[in-house]
Amino acid sequence: MIRIEHIGIAVSNLEDAIQTWETLLNTTCYKREVVEAQKVDTAFFQVGESKIELLGAIAPDSVIATYIEKKGQGMHHVAYEVEDIRAEMIRLKEAGFQLLQDEPTSGADNKLVAFLHPKSSNGVLVELCQTKK
Amino acid sequence: MIRIEHIGIAVSNLEDAIQTWETLLNTTCYKREVVEAQKVDTAFFQVGESKIELLGAIAPDSVIATYIEKKGQGMHHVAYEVEDIRAEMIRLKEAGFQLLQDEPTSGADNKLVAFLHPKSSNGVLVELCQTKK
Repeated sequence: MIRIEHIGIAVSNLEDAIQTWETLLNTTCYKREVVEAQKVDTAFFQVGESKIELLGAIAPDSVIATYIEKKGQGMHHVAYEVEDIRAEMIRLKEAGFQLLQDEPTSGADNKLVAFLHPKSSNGVLVELCQTKK
Repeated sequence: MIRIEHIGIAVSNLEDAIQTWETLLNTTCYKREVVEAQKVDTAFFQVGESKIELLGAIAPDSVIATYIEKKGQGMHHVAYEVEDIRAEMIRLKEAGFQLLQDEPTSGADNKLVAFLHPKSSNGVLVELCQTKK
């Protein structure tokens, strides 16, 4: 794993949360992006080499709406930048981690992404991501 | 905020979790440290400029035991490195964030640390930390 690419945080009200995190991190949100496939609106902040990604639901059946209903707002996943996502998926599958998908998919911010089931990793939803070439 | 200093992950069995995260991150645990004040045993992994800190309870009344009982294993807090922790505490308090302490305390890994209440920050327990000089 090269670095923590981002931490995803599930929030109830994205506009309010953007103001909160701009103040907390003392930096401005540099990007907004809707990811229709996951029914989420996202807002990004840079901190060192990593990002904070706020995630707000845009539909009642969004993964983020379901998450907040069950667990409340808070840290939803951690994403690691990798050089070769397919090679990492094979390595982790062979090591016994449960992948949530067989092939990487398109995520926000020009990335190929894949998720590991949190039961493989102490309750932490782990995302692998590789910048698209 | 300079960078994400670490992400703290609450785990039920620290020895098992160290093996899991060594495989997942493809790197070895570089440090173990007991923090008696918080009744936790910790294990650190470097990923880029940030760390993953696994947190295991060493007593039934440890903050980590209480957390896992209530919420299960998973991401417990995110820590940001700051240059001047007292200045940041004042800045955030004046901006309306609720601090969990008035003065910084000694944390793991040679740091001065202070926590913000998660209700100020969308359910995320935020730690500020400054390397001791």
